[in-house]
Amino acid sequence: MLVDRAERREAQAMATLTVHPDRLLPAEPGVRDIARRLYTAVRDLPIVSPHGHVDPRLLLEDTPFADPTSLLIQPDHYVTRLLHAGGVPLSDLGVGEGPMAEDRARAAWRLLCSHWHLLRGTPVRYWFDSELVDIFGVTERPSAANADALYDLIAGQLAQPGHRPRALLRRFGIDFLATTDDPADDLAAHDALRADPDVSTTVAPTFRPDRYLEVGRPGWPEAVKELGGDCGHYTGYVAALEERRRYFVAHGAVSADHGHADAGTEPLGHRDAERIYRSALDGTVTPQEATAFRQHMTFEMARMSCDDGLVMTLHPGVYRNHHPATFERYGPDTGHDIPLAVELTRSLRPLLSRFGTYPGFHLVLFTVDPDVYSREIAPLAGFYPAVYAGAPWWFLDNPAEIGRFQAAVTETAGFSRLSGFIDDTRAFCSIPARHDMSRRLDAGFLAGLVAAHRLDEDEAHDTLTGLVSDQPRKVFKL
Amino acid sequence: MLVDRAERREAQAMATLTVHPDRLLPAEPGVRDIARRLYTAVRDLPIVSPHGHVDPRLLLEDTPFADPTSLLIQPDHYVTRLLHAGGVPLSDLGVGEGPMAEDRARAAWRLLCSHWHLLRGTPVRYWFDSELVDIFGVTERPSAANADALYDLIAGQLAQPGHRPRALLRRFGIDFLATTDDPADDLAAHDALRADPDVSTTVAPTFRPDRYLEVGRPGWPEAVKELGGDCGHYTGYVAALEERRRYFVAHGAVSADHGHADAGTEPLGHRDAERIYRSALDGTVTPQEATAFRQHMTFEMARMSCDDGLVMTLHPGVYRNHHPATFERYGPDTGHDIPLAVELTRSLRPLLSRFGTYPGFHLVLFTVDPDVYSREIAPLAGFYPAVYAGAPWWFLDNPAEIGRFQAAVTETAGFSRLSGFIDDTRAFCSIPARHDMSRRLDAGFLAGLVAAHRLDEDEAHDTLTGLVSDQPRKVFKL
Amino acid sequence: MLVDRAERREAQAMATLTVHPDRLLPAEPGVRDIARRLYTAVRDLPIVSPHGHVDPRLLLEDTPFADPTSLLIQPDHYVTRLLHAGGVPLSDLGVGEGPMAEDRARAAWRLLCSHWHLLRGTPVRYWFDSELVDIFGVTERPSAANADALYDLIAGQLAQPGHRPRALLRRFGIDFLATTDDPADDLAAHDALRADPDVSTTVAPTFRPDRYLEVGRPGWPEAVKELGGDCGHYTGYVAALEERRRYFVAHGAVSADHGHADAGTEPLGHRDAERIYRSALDGTVTPQEATAFRQHMTFEMARMSCDDGLVMTLHPGVYRNHHPATFERYGPDTGHDIPLAVELTRSLRPLLSRFGTYPGFHLVLFTVDPDVYSREIAPLAGFYPAVYAGAPWWFLDNPAEIGRFQAAVTETAGFSRLSGFIDDTRAFCSIPARHDMSRRLDAGFLAGLVAAHRLDEDEAHDTLTGLVSDQPRKVFKL
Repeated sequence: MLVDRAERREAQAMATLTVHPDRLLPAEPGVRDIARRLYTAVRDLPIVSPHGHVDPRLLLEDTPFADPTSLLIQPDHYVTRLLHAGGVPLSDLGVGEGPMAEDRARAAWRLLCSHWHLLRGTPVRYWFDSELVDIFGVTERPSAANADALYDLIAGQLAQPGHRPRALLRRFGIDFLATTDDPADDLAAHDALRADPDVSTTVAPTFRPDRYLEVGRPGWPEAVKELGGDCGHYTGYVAALEERRRYFVAHGAVSADHGHADAGTEPLGHRDAERIYRSALDGTVTPQEATAFRQHMTFEMARMSCDDGLVMTLHPGVYRNHHPATFERYGPDTGHDIPLAVELTRSLRPLLSRFGTYPGFHLVLFTVDPDVYSREIAPLAGFYPAVYAGAPWWFLDNPAEIGRFQAAVTETAGFSRLSGFIDDTRAFCSIPARHDMSRRLDAGFLAGLVAAHRLDEDEAHDTLTGLVSDQPRKVFKL
Repeated sequence: MLVDRAERREAQAMATLTVHPDRLLPAEPGVRDIARRLYTAVRDLPIVSPHGHVDPRLLLEDTPFADPTSLLIQPDHYVTRLLHAGGVPLSDLGVGEGPMAEDRARAAWRLLCSHWHLLRGTPVRYWFDSELVDIFGVTERPSAANADALYDLIAGQLAQPGHRPRALLRRFGIDFLATTDDPADDLAAHDALRADPDVSTTVAPTFRPDRYLEVGRPGWPEAVKELGGDCGHYTGYVAALEERRRYFVAHGAVSADHGHADAGTEPLGHRDAERIYRSALDGTVTPQEATAFRQHMTFEMARMSCDDGLVMTLHPGVYRNHHPATFERYGPDTGHDIPLAVELTRSLRPLLSRFGTYPGFHLVLFTVDPDVYSREIAPLAGFYPAVYAGAPWWFLDNPAEIGRFQAAVTETAGFSRLSGFIDDTRAFCSIPARHDMSRRLDAGFLAGLVAAHRLDEDEAHDTLTGLVSDQPRKVFKL
Repeated sequence: MLVDRAERREAQAMATLTVHPDRLLPAEPGVRDIARRLYTAVRDLPIVSPHGHVDPRLLLEDTPFADPTSLLIQPDHYVTRLLHAGGVPLSDLGVGEGPMAEDRARAAWRLLCSHWHLLRGTPVRYWFDSELVDIFGVTERPSAANADALYDLIAGQLAQPGHRPRALLRRFGIDFLATTDDPADDLAAHDALRADPDVSTTVAPTFRPDRYLEVGRPGWPEAVKELGGDCGHYTGYVAALEERRRYFVAHGAVSADHGHADAGTEPLGHRDAERIYRSALDGTVTPQEATAFRQHMTFEMARMSCDDGLVMTLHPGVYRNHHPATFERYGPDTGHDIPLAVELTRSLRPLLSRFGTYPGFHLVLFTVDPDVYSREIAPLAGFYPAVYAGAPWWFLDNPAEIGRFQAAVTETAGFSRLSGFIDDTRAFCSIPARHDMSRRLDAGFLAGLVAAHRLDEDEAHDTLTGLVSDQPRKVFKL
């Protein structure tokens, strides 16, 4: 069996772990030379991270990380899903739990190391290699044989001041970091961070209203009360959302983030919206009505963005919590959200007909359906001043799909319609590795254009600097 | 901001503009050597352009082009859409207008030059580089700083005899050029061109009946009267279309071109067709009936092609005029047609069941949904003798998508089922650059097959010559 | 005309035919060196073929192959479809017939050779080159001029003992070979082969129940009687299917194979299932009911797989027998099955919610819609322990699509979620060429990861050996 043999091999060979300075750059020596020059110029630029899932309390409290497992495995569904597919129960990995007792944490770490071969060829492996070497000074490829030694090595470092959250934040060179937040959040953690002279990174909240817009979901009538305001009727609900957005803007937010199954944006008449809202409060709303209402509210969110200036990010097309038994036991974001085919051209037309040329409105479109980037997003971003093509994201955040995105989207929309890289991660330590991967791949892609004599090298250099630094600042209005 | 910095850079550096002899060829030196040999053999072969949008009156009247802007910007929605996305109002570019007064034309040209960086990485930039160097002898990369000088340089040349339309037509080496024409057109311009001994290029009309088949569109009842014949009833309408097709054939047409939202071809019974036709004349047709009628007429068009020999070209899957405000102000073809997911396997079955093996019937299929080429068109072209895979077209006419097309389609259908390159342009000066790009990319792709030892070099050479010269002549029956 | 010129060229030049030792390996010399080392290590490993269409009687009877045409052309719709698209009538190729008289067989062979250029750039050409050189010692590229000589050369060898089916089976080094069988088959041929000491290859049947599950198809009420058992009511029908599966397991089957238009798996209540089953027996079932019943039975098949251990393979999304006239004259599997867009995420949810983590259940998913591998199959295989991504199959079994699959699927799911290569062929002599192609492409892909410093070479070596040998054995429980 592959697994057995691979395990045996891993156990036998104590292979070294290194990260090569030219990793991910193109293989052809001439192109690689160009890419190396381009990459070197942006390698050390500060990180701008306009969308992600780091908890602001992590940075506020600056508590040392508990152990390697709670830092590198438990919160990262990119990792746990692959181990689960390979036969490891999520419970053995502490999914859905906080830090575990040391024996369980160590056992989970051993499972990662003994299944290291499952990660081959994935970006998870790539990020891990970078993190282990660059942050923790690991020099051996993880395996069953050295799992405990690596655990001890990393745990020892986590206890040191240099590996506490704020120290790492500084070391990572993160200029701007957006979190993702519930509209009812008081944003006290963000306020405290902003007030703290020890933290030079701007840590901004992001308005994420999905659960308040899906009026047919169980628990919605209770949830909506958390918004404050007079949510007993539709007009009050809209006013409450507007008020919460203003609150977020006042506390540093730059964007509002939306993820639903489809990208529909057909507005309802006021009377229909009121009627459906009442049914939702009564618990008598039909699934069709709930969807129509949410599509209407997506249109409304764009209208509010035109008013309050929050950048709108939209990432439709994911079937959330595909496996009911896993959802019931471990909760959401546990690795079984699965992409769906999605349609944007017709769906976004109501929104774009109304707001697509509205001055200052920014709509960043993401998808996990690779074809949609080339077929629909690039053409939309190549005409509408409001539309930007988001980075290849989630399932597409890997060298292969990034390459496909680069080729397909820039040919149609150019570089100026790209959002720049988005890490979208809840794995704090992977942030620098993810941005570095993106810089390497962008350098390689631009080097290819230079080698094909489609771009002069000074233009490639300028474009790369733009993608890393200027473009995310412009698109997210930083 | 990216834009500011890029503008500054462009303004500072007076960079040279050159076109490298090896541009677009593969980077690996061994493969590049093969590609160079292949490309050199076809570089100077005459151009065959079986589908495009050049106005025959341009060549008939041979009036000097008015200025750089009306030649290179205003009619080309590939250019204006990218500038519009970058924040330039279409009105400043003269979209939807004829030649402008010199101050406005010059201002539009300055906008192009100062936004030159928006074109990076797109084929528009590539075509422009070739045109500026090869046709106008430009030696500096356009920028805000040299915009006026370039304008003067080009304007000066346009006033010379060597840059009048017929002189360029000769210089471009175009053997065959198809235009796109309304079925009601009297084709007098084509007749005059054919009679003119000064024009050696064959300039052929193309029958494009879309607006006569979409019976639910506003204005259809008036439009159909232009067809002549007795269009007061269905039978007369069909006869009128047949008569206009015969007229086109008699005046040199080789193909009929069809572009609708979907690819449906389900025929109606005669009684249903008559009934819907009557409703359309009365203005009481429903959208469903109008679509069913148009799908029926697409089937009928194939039947007529079997009779009169016109090659049928079909390119479904575009949402026309996506942005209503732009359409109302500037008209159609102004850069906001957006691709739609499209289905061919079921949709074309009625047509292909009936005519897919009809001797001499040629159906060339195009799509702007890249996946459809590999998933559906290549398999259809790999079985039905009537079906040819059209070139990667419109949004797909760029090195990245051409590469994807080459790889995916030829593996399933071989080279003999390809239409050869189609430029489909209304930008007259871009024709040689577009064909040259295609020849370079085909040479590179074939060189890759030779380097992988899948094809001998003599076969690659024969295949490339076929794609450039023989295949479009065979497919379009020239 | 291309065809004429190509024919002329083929006829003139008596080009040599060779297969290069580095064919299909990456062009860049550094990467090629790594790929060559990797490939060399697996080149001669035994072939494991867990899904295909070789007739077991071929091996049981060991009758010499009749002639080159009945061996290499007639049964292979990959070949005949391309010739048909190029204008050759299927009747001239003996499609749907057994061995032909020598004059017709020779004429068909001449058609293949004189149309050899139609195969350029396709995997069919690649497989043919390998077969002709490696199995028959051909040294000249086929053409009209040498067609008869090649026919005689191959025919002469087919008459020798060394080219009889069992001799080739040994020479090909096939360890395991699955056939595809009707559930009503008595599997006597398999029993006899297993009992024969002269055959060391394991030849296993595969349970393929499609036609018994499509209850709305003409002839179903008669067909179902062949299953045995009490199929007069639903419970008996289910029991009969279970019994036939047990029979297959007892006779060596390892998998059950399912190919329907969609991937729906919604179960019905027992009462609905009974009611629809009765309607089907009466011939009054509606198309909607028949589809719902088949989707229910797909769910049931997964349940049975959990019980009896048969690996479930699923390959939805093909429009069978697209051209009615060809189907009526030549029957099924004659080259006009055409891919359809297909959806898995929602469709498979009922099945995976219930059985996706069932211990030992294996579900191998195939598609001919390339995007579905990256968008849906890789994410499913990257979470569910039961799900494996099948090899790029049928229309996707070529270097271009294999490359796309490798890149897209492994990034999301890693190598351990792949089925290993599946040849799926009814062209016996193409089996080694197909597996060799896969090994070369896997070696090249892994070499690219090594060159990009994403994987160490020892890991690439281990992964490649796994893909060739261990992984199919694990996935198919050999």
